[in-house]
Amino acid sequence: MVKKVLKFGGTSVGTIERIEHVANIVKNEKSAGNDVIVVVSAMAGKTNELIQLSNKISNTFNKREFDVLISSGEQVTCALLAGALLKLKVKSKSWLNWQIPIITEGEHSNARIINMYTDQIDNFLKEKGVAIIPGFQGVSKNGDITTIGRGGSDATAVAIAKIFNTDTCEIYTDVDGVYSTDPNKIPVAKKIEKISYDEMLELSSLGAKVMQPSAVQTAMMYDIPLEVRSTFSNRKGTKILNQENIDYTKSVTGVAYSKDDAKITIIGVKDKPGVAANIFEPLSKAQINVDMVIQNISSDQKTTDITFTVKRIDVSKTKQILKNESKVDYKGIVENVNVAKISIVGAGMVSTPGVTYRMFRALADEKINILAISTSEIKLSVIIDERNTLDAIKKLHTVFDLD
Amino acid sequence: MVKKVLKFGGTSVGTIERIEHVANIVKNEKSAGNDVIVVVSAMAGKTNELIQLSNKISNTFNKREFDVLISSGEQVTCALLAGALLKLKVKSKSWLNWQIPIITEGEHSNARIINMYTDQIDNFLKEKGVAIIPGFQGVSKNGDITTIGRGGSDATAVAIAKIFNTDTCEIYTDVDGVYSTDPNKIPVAKKIEKISYDEMLELSSLGAKVMQPSAVQTAMMYDIPLEVRSTFSNRKGTKILNQENIDYTKSVTGVAYSKDDAKITIIGVKDKPGVAANIFEPLSKAQINVDMVIQNISSDQKTTDITFTVKRIDVSKTKQILKNESKVDYKGIVENVNVAKISIVGAGMVSTPGVTYRMFRALADEKINILAISTSEIKLSVIIDERNTLDAIKKLHTVFDLD
Repeated sequence: MVKKVLKFGGTSVGTIERIEHVANIVKNEKSAGNDVIVVVSAMAGKTNELIQLSNKISNTFNKREFDVLISSGEQVTCALLAGALLKLKVKSKSWLNWQIPIITEGEHSNARIINMYTDQIDNFLKEKGVAIIPGFQGVSKNGDITTIGRGGSDATAVAIAKIFNTDTCEIYTDVDGVYSTDPNKIPVAKKIEKISYDEMLELSSLGAKVMQPSAVQTAMMYDIPLEVRSTFSNRKGTKILNQENIDYTKSVTGVAYSKDDAKITIIGVKDKPGVAANIFEPLSKAQINVDMVIQNISSDQKTTDITFTVKRIDVSKTKQILKNESKVDYKGIVENVNVAKISIVGAGMVSTPGVTYRMFRALADEKINILAISTSEIKLSVIIDERNTLDAIKKLHTVFDLD
Repeated sequence: MVKKVLKFGGTSVGTIERIEHVANIVKNEKSAGNDVIVVVSAMAGKTNELIQLSNKISNTFNKREFDVLISSGEQVTCALLAGALLKLKVKSKSWLNWQIPIITEGEHSNARIINMYTDQIDNFLKEKGVAIIPGFQGVSKNGDITTIGRGGSDATAVAIAKIFNTDTCEIYTDVDGVYSTDPNKIPVAKKIEKISYDEMLELSSLGAKVMQPSAVQTAMMYDIPLEVRSTFSNRKGTKILNQENIDYTKSVTGVAYSKDDAKITIIGVKDKPGVAANIFEPLSKAQINVDMVIQNISSDQKTTDITFTVKRIDVSKTKQILKNESKVDYKGIVENVNVAKISIVGAGMVSTPGVTYRMFRALADEKINILAISTSEIKLSVIIDERNTLDAIKKLHTVFDLD
């Protein structure tokens, strides 16, 4: 017998039929003798529907009332799932944020769970009941409803796993795990059996929308074993664990890509100390995240070009700031939004020499030009022309033995 | 300056445009210097939508979870209206059932409000804020969400008017008041300026769906002045008051009709004591409400016919009980569902002789046959053939000076 948190995302509870299917999954866990706490998201589409209602009134809708509004979505799912379980004769009961309560701090729509009372639910588990809890929300110390940001149901699940000291936290979703690369694009993509928190975080930040990164971070901090699996199949999912629990036979675990980035080049800036700082200071103040930076070697010893990447949505804001606020003189700005970021991720990279070389060689073999590079302990990213995205992923997937 | 409860029904808040319109009504009340507490229903259609979701799972959906489910509708309206008011720079805030809290007792889906904490909202009113409260719901003493039955938002509004000791309780809806008869059918119908609680209750029970009867009853008990008015016009509505506050110039206040009834005749029952009791006992046990009863004079001194009316939806259940459970012998059962109940209602009736005679005379003049009669202090109802409904209403409306 183990104690489990099962979390079901929006598509998993998107219709009544699916909610009944989830009830059967929960029933099976219960029949296997496990203690079960279930965390649910709002039915797919419902949160967006509520957001649209608020947007019709105002794009600066009051944040306190916004949280009152959108937290209603999970309430509906909780009640429906509890009802579906009771129909299957599984003892169960919904608890809303304020009934537990789940205490949060921080601003509305972006709160953090800091505590949770456990007595009621512990007692209910002892009586062999299944507790159903809404993800994504809590109450502040002064009794206001708060939400914890999009995808926050994952964070709720992990927080519950921590506070109730459960053995596992299983994230049921519409994909059956984490893949070595995008299985929709690259048919040879393989499901990863085990992945470390770090690797998962790098993959998330690169667009693998399997789990909310801050939830993975929390799980890492408290060493809570996660498993991502499909609501719609019985296949095993991907376990997300501490690195020590994984045997690395491969240097690279996965190849990820994102098309969120854009490359900006500032041409003809003076090649003297302090220039880069003067360029990036106003961007930083405007909350624009600069990812990779390349300073070309100056040809005339007087001026140089500086290339960097930002998110595509920040491009026009970036250009505006450079034009109006920057104290730096330059000849021109060139942007390129048709780029892709390709990354190889693997905790085994640090201990395997030559990974960097093999990546560059592989891309060169395909005649793919590298426009920028950035590295971290477990990740190596390059910016390339968007047209070459698929070729690059395929090649790297093969070169690093992931096919 | 007065203290008011304004209650807005489902159609009044059925779209974002309407919610914004309601926000303007509230703003005007505030600008006039009034203290305002607003009670809202779920957006039109939303409660039914949620009920349908639960029905897809089970027709005997768990009652506790059912209340968790459907109470989410008012939560959405509260947040949207508070947001719309804040956009108009009107200080306002939503309170959910558990945030006040509104304490109820009794079974799920049919609870009664027994208490409400007032400190927070009183303070907010002192700070010139508008408090927005969900109708239809509360929390039980052990912290479960409860609802108080369909149309329960009216009951919430009246309970708040009582507990906060407000000067008025205004029920905003999609009709602009209570009419002397159905204005959709009888163009000469006139809006009633003032009506007593009793009269309103009789009209409600006859199908005038303007206000929930139990809310009128509570208002009567605590002498809370009500006003029913339209959200969509500036016209004055109908005031519902204690009878003492109304000058009765007319014996009859209104003519109502309903097509919910059916007439059942049991032919050839033995004419001896205890027969009627034996017929109606099993119906009463089955919660079937028998309205009018007529026992014909027996022709042969041995057998008689008994005629009574029940709600149409109860006809088949009634016949089944008579066949299977009744200890009475009879020759046959004849039913007639094509009947209408026509009633004249007026607190002035008791003090005006001849009202009964004038009603019968009027119907006779139109050659309308009366199939059954029932009377109360302020109401006189007859059952007639359904085909004659409109003629009967028109004639009575004229005869009693209501045109």
